[in-house]
Amino acid sequence: MKQTKITKLLNIKYPIIQGGMVWVSGAKLAAAASEAGCLGVIGAGSMKPDLLKTHLDKALSLTSKPLAINIPLLYSKVDEQIKIALEAGIKIFITSAGSPKKYTSFLKEKGCTVIHVTSSPELAIKCEKAGVDAIVAEGFEAGGHNGRDEITTMALIPQVVSAVSIPVIAAGGFASGQSIVAGFALGAEGIQMGTRFLMTKESSAHDNYKNEILKATSASTKLMMKNLVPVRLLKNKFFNEVQSLENSCASDEELTELLGKGRAKLGMLEGDIDEGELEIGQVCSSIKDIPSTDQMISKLVDEYRESIARLQS
Amino acid sequence: MKQTKITKLLNIKYPIIQGGMVWVSGAKLAAAASEAGCLGVIGAGSMKPDLLKTHLDKALSLTSKPLAINIPLLYSKVDEQIKIALEAGIKIFITSAGSPKKYTSFLKEKGCTVIHVTSSPELAIKCEKAGVDAIVAEGFEAGGHNGRDEITTMALIPQVVSAVSIPVIAAGGFASGQSIVAGFALGAEGIQMGTRFLMTKESSAHDNYKNEILKATSASTKLMMKNLVPVRLLKNKFFNEVQSLENSCASDEELTELLGKGRAKLGMLEGDIDEGELEIGQVCSSIKDIPSTDQMISKLVDEYRESIARLQS
Repeated sequence: MKQTKITKLLNIKYPIIQGGMVWVSGAKLAAAASEAGCLGVIGAGSMKPDLLKTHLDKALSLTSKPLAINIPLLYSKVDEQIKIALEAGIKIFITSAGSPKKYTSFLKEKGCTVIHVTSSPELAIKCEKAGVDAIVAEGFEAGGHNGRDEITTMALIPQVVSAVSIPVIAAGGFASGQSIVAGFALGAEGIQMGTRFLMTKESSAHDNYKNEILKATSASTKLMMKNLVPVRLLKNKFFNEVQSLENSCASDEELTELLGKGRAKLGMLEGDIDEGELEIGQVCSSIKDIPSTDQMISKLVDEYRESIARLQS
Repeated sequence: MKQTKITKLLNIKYPIIQGGMVWVSGAKLAAAASEAGCLGVIGAGSMKPDLLKTHLDKALSLTSKPLAINIPLLYSKVDEQIKIALEAGIKIFITSAGSPKKYTSFLKEKGCTVIHVTSSPELAIKCEKAGVDAIVAEGFEAGGHNGRDEITTMALIPQVVSAVSIPVIAAGGFASGQSIVAGFALGAEGIQMGTRFLMTKESSAHDNYKNEILKATSASTKLMMKNLVPVRLLKNKFFNEVQSLENSCASDEELTELLGKGRAKLGMLEGDIDEGELEIGQVCSSIKDIPSTDQMISKLVDEYRESIARLQS
């Protein structure tokens, strides 16, 4: 696979970033992704400081290759998470769900590489001004938390690439070598995949959840809770309850009450596929296997090469 | 640009289809698209039988290259539209917004090529069974009428390509040579563009409307009226009224009353950018010029070649 500004910036073999995912991307997956030649990412969003430290130490014992942490800035323990990550020796920070101005200077002063996640060209410009090294531009089809403007990857990536001069990592809708080629054609220098990495042996998503995704059809996900925090969910009993409230113009308070606490953990980590909140990307219906991370990457590389050859012919 | 199953099937130079658009793609645009080496398409949806005959005759006098008609099957005069098109000598029919079973056999018996527009892999399979020659698979980002399942082009195209063995034309989010390469990487054999053709000198979209699109930002469109017939609109005064009704859980009757009659004509053809219904694709914010169709296609071809070269390097 070709070398890009992102492989150089991050010192990785393939321009592929494993998306940070709550309850899914702990030490095991992140280390496997890094060992396979990608950027492995510990998803700190769901981790209390002690648990984060355990995962960071474990991941760093499993790989000596570049490893990153994703920190959604909407949680309350962000300062502590950053302190722990710096102490553990993490040098690549992916921040999301908050202002890029908040931590970028601080992290750059510590010698770190900073990447911020955006869902619009306007926010990408703010990220560049804040001094980040690269941007993840994530389309409407992506799983989990998402932008409000519903801009799809096809529409978003070329606009972000035009808007900034720092390298852009495309996210949302990527799960094959063919799609990586498509992302590069749109101007991306790297590709972030979440759902495809979730569907590997090393991800800590519960087997019930993985098996449910194997049954997904093209219409099995939807972006919900747009008035609270937009999030793309797999359709299940909990989803139906959210939809029913939204269709009846329920208040944010009613939705917040239904959401309750620990729904994502319940579904994604503990495997309650009825009552749990199952965050997943729209591309999930393209995924029909649960290989090891290493096998999955080998297949992506083969598909990528075939796709490039087909475009040349 | 490379030759594909679609250039062969339709006997056209470039694998580019000009999308049929109400009030926008009459004789002038369709003939210009065909003359530029693409498939020009008369958008019959907005045309009463007499007007359709005028446009078909005019277009066929302006070009001897392949020319098609797009017939949305939800209008009441479909039988008459088909009769007029056959009598005029049209040999390529693109049907949409209805069952592919309804007219495919009849048109195939008349020696015509039939293409049906879909927004899901499941409907694509039905199209193939109905005997169509090719499929347009249109993602969530596309302008105008759209599917209910919100499947984006990135997620949709690979799934449709896997689901059927007939060639797939990708639509939704395409307005540049780079995006054409991306569509081919995803497995498409042709690319349909609407918004990009709307923004040419030959389209009959009103200048007020075109100038409004030049000002669009990435968040300027949204898929609305999902409970009636989903349609992607440019945000304007009329859009705000629709949104306000939808946010208050208004009934379908209230929405239908607001919509009234002739809103699309008022906005798109007559240029009332406040009260009119302005159908447009999400990619509109990438478009910053109103060239001739011929110039636009030349630029696409240049961009395509540069993009392929960049992928190879």
